[in-house]
Amino acid sequence: MSLSPNSVNATVSIALGERSYPILIGQDLIGSPKTWEGLPKAATAMVVTNDTVGPLYAKQLCEALAPHYAQVHVVTLPDGEAHKTWESLNLIFDALLSRGCDRKTVLFALGGGVIGDMTGFAAACYMRGVPFVQVPTTLLAQVDSSVGGKTAINHPMGKNMIGAFYQPVRVVCDLATLSTLPKRELSAGLAEVIKYGPIHDLTFLDWIEQNLPALLTRDAAALAHAVKRSCEIKADVVGQDERESGLRAILNFGHTFGHAIEAGLGYGAWLHGEAVGCGMVMAARLSQRMGLLNDAAATRLVSLIQAAGLPVRGPVLDSAGNALRYLSLMRVDKKAEAGEIKFVLVNDQGQAVVQGAPDALVAEVIDACCA
Amino acid sequence: MSLSPNSVNATVSIALGERSYPILIGQDLIGSPKTWEGLPKAATAMVVTNDTVGPLYAKQLCEALAPHYAQVHVVTLPDGEAHKTWESLNLIFDALLSRGCDRKTVLFALGGGVIGDMTGFAAACYMRGVPFVQVPTTLLAQVDSSVGGKTAINHPMGKNMIGAFYQPVRVVCDLATLSTLPKRELSAGLAEVIKYGPIHDLTFLDWIEQNLPALLTRDAAALAHAVKRSCEIKADVVGQDERESGLRAILNFGHTFGHAIEAGLGYGAWLHGEAVGCGMVMAARLSQRMGLLNDAAATRLVSLIQAAGLPVRGPVLDSAGNALRYLSLMRVDKKAEAGEIKFVLVNDQGQAVVQGAPDALVAEVIDACCA
Repeated sequence: MSLSPNSVNATVSIALGERSYPILIGQDLIGSPKTWEGLPKAATAMVVTNDTVGPLYAKQLCEALAPHYAQVHVVTLPDGEAHKTWESLNLIFDALLSRGCDRKTVLFALGGGVIGDMTGFAAACYMRGVPFVQVPTTLLAQVDSSVGGKTAINHPMGKNMIGAFYQPVRVVCDLATLSTLPKRELSAGLAEVIKYGPIHDLTFLDWIEQNLPALLTRDAAALAHAVKRSCEIKADVVGQDERESGLRAILNFGHTFGHAIEAGLGYGAWLHGEAVGCGMVMAARLSQRMGLLNDAAATRLVSLIQAAGLPVRGPVLDSAGNALRYLSLMRVDKKAEAGEIKFVLVNDQGQAVVQGAPDALVAEVIDACCA
Repeated sequence: MSLSPNSVNATVSIALGERSYPILIGQDLIGSPKTWEGLPKAATAMVVTNDTVGPLYAKQLCEALAPHYAQVHVVTLPDGEAHKTWESLNLIFDALLSRGCDRKTVLFALGGGVIGDMTGFAAACYMRGVPFVQVPTTLLAQVDSSVGGKTAINHPMGKNMIGAFYQPVRVVCDLATLSTLPKRELSAGLAEVIKYGPIHDLTFLDWIEQNLPALLTRDAAALAHAVKRSCEIKADVVGQDERESGLRAILNFGHTFGHAIEAGLGYGAWLHGEAVGCGMVMAARLSQRMGLLNDAAATRLVSLIQAAGLPVRGPVLDSAGNALRYLSLMRVDKKAEAGEIKFVLVNDQGQAVVQGAPDALVAEVIDACCA
């Protein structure tokens, strides 16, 4: 695959009727005015970013937007999952209102998953809805969180508890931004790439295994394929079930355990992708104990997660009763119904199933998987 | 029109495809389990109310819901527009999470417009959307705010700036609740009833004029007709333009000036309906000066608003530059575009038009209409 600068290398479409939109994948897209053609017309644009990504890319984004909007504003939020809160969200509203932004103003989410989730939720709520564009700058956001319209902030009692299904009008994945990504963030992104294999595409799982060294050394063509294939799978699933009434829940493989880790340690202690990586280990081991996944396949997945630089042992959240603490945190998961936790499990055919599991069995898995 | 207790007297349908729902209008509906049949199934229901309405009706609502839900919880918020804030909204989220409410939990908004707007917005955001039912207990909420899916909270810089379009699954207008309504609230509700006349139905305006004494003495049949006809008109408009891309803005007659009064005085100083009543006076006078409405029609409308017990003189928001203060507050109105205020004006044919107006002319109207 050749990767020319300033040009779109691949386009993946999200088919959702009048809410359909394209994902543009390519090199050096942010700084090219052409990237931003054809968006909804407005007098003002508002770039939402954080204090890590902003200094790297906000200036070139603003300059590329200038031909399209009379005024381009920037609001910079503190970086990190710990700031995915109402307080940060309100900084966006304050900026929009104090700069006279109206119902047509277009928001641009320049950053990782936290910025994307918060900007999307702000766009969903500001004057009951304004258009927004995702400009994900982390691998995790490019392959997962920027696509599909899930937006949210955290509540102290649970991750992503307050949010909306609200689709962007465009997603722009500039692969050049991955060159500035810290190694730990690259691994976190690989967790969500790996996820698509066991739930939907065992051939892609093979490809990831074979190309992991190239991905870890940021080979441009390998990253481009990983982003493209991940977006295709996500587009397929979201196109069938936008609001997670069924199928879409399979994208939460590893997330039920993972959210418990994030909430239990305090948001930001582990990166989301790290918690998901470790959560996939637990979910694979639970799938194995439930008789869905053979031992070799489970061990193979754990090895891949480890090789990607992700933690495969869960943290002890409560030394007096660790499994009970995990179970209690998982009971506020959004998939839970009437107190019963629903797990995303995988089988030998590369399919995911969403179902309950006996508490005792889950506790065994937690005990076996925690440090 | 006969009004039997515990029975639905009229049903108005909101036609919005898969988001369609009925408005049930009748006497003593809250306490009847039959009223609550056929709602989405769930283990838990959460009644959201305030410290004024809760003591009057929460117990009978909970008892009537008991046959349908294993658990019925109540969360009580402080009463009043000044509490239509993120802090109050968060009390709902805290209650939902601490009681283990899941993605199927049904919320019931028991109260006036503030409770309805906040409960609806909480339902839109909790776990990215749970079903909710409007149980409006004020005339204003029954004829206007509970219908059509506009939900929001206020921001210090503007009313209803943070919100969502999110439709309830049912609206239950129990006319019996109007018997406990303070006189001032009854008049505030009449402002929104009167509104439907000049924008859509001059025959209804005649009816309101003739039946104003009956409405003010809370004649059951007169109130039933006012609620029904208001809901029919709102259903017609919302059915054509759910997300206010055009037509729906006519329902904001009197609201552009009214929101400036509310924000300028501080939320809660005047009731929303009082501000709308006075705002309609200003909008009618502006329509008159713009040559759309004849003098007699404008004066007739002002007289009706006054006879309904509503203020017809605007407050002075800034003695040094009152008109400028109004104009500045109106520029953050959601209908404004690129800084130009859009007014809802009415003409002699009983139609509304949304358009800009010269600042100088608006300032003249403000000067002429303020005390």
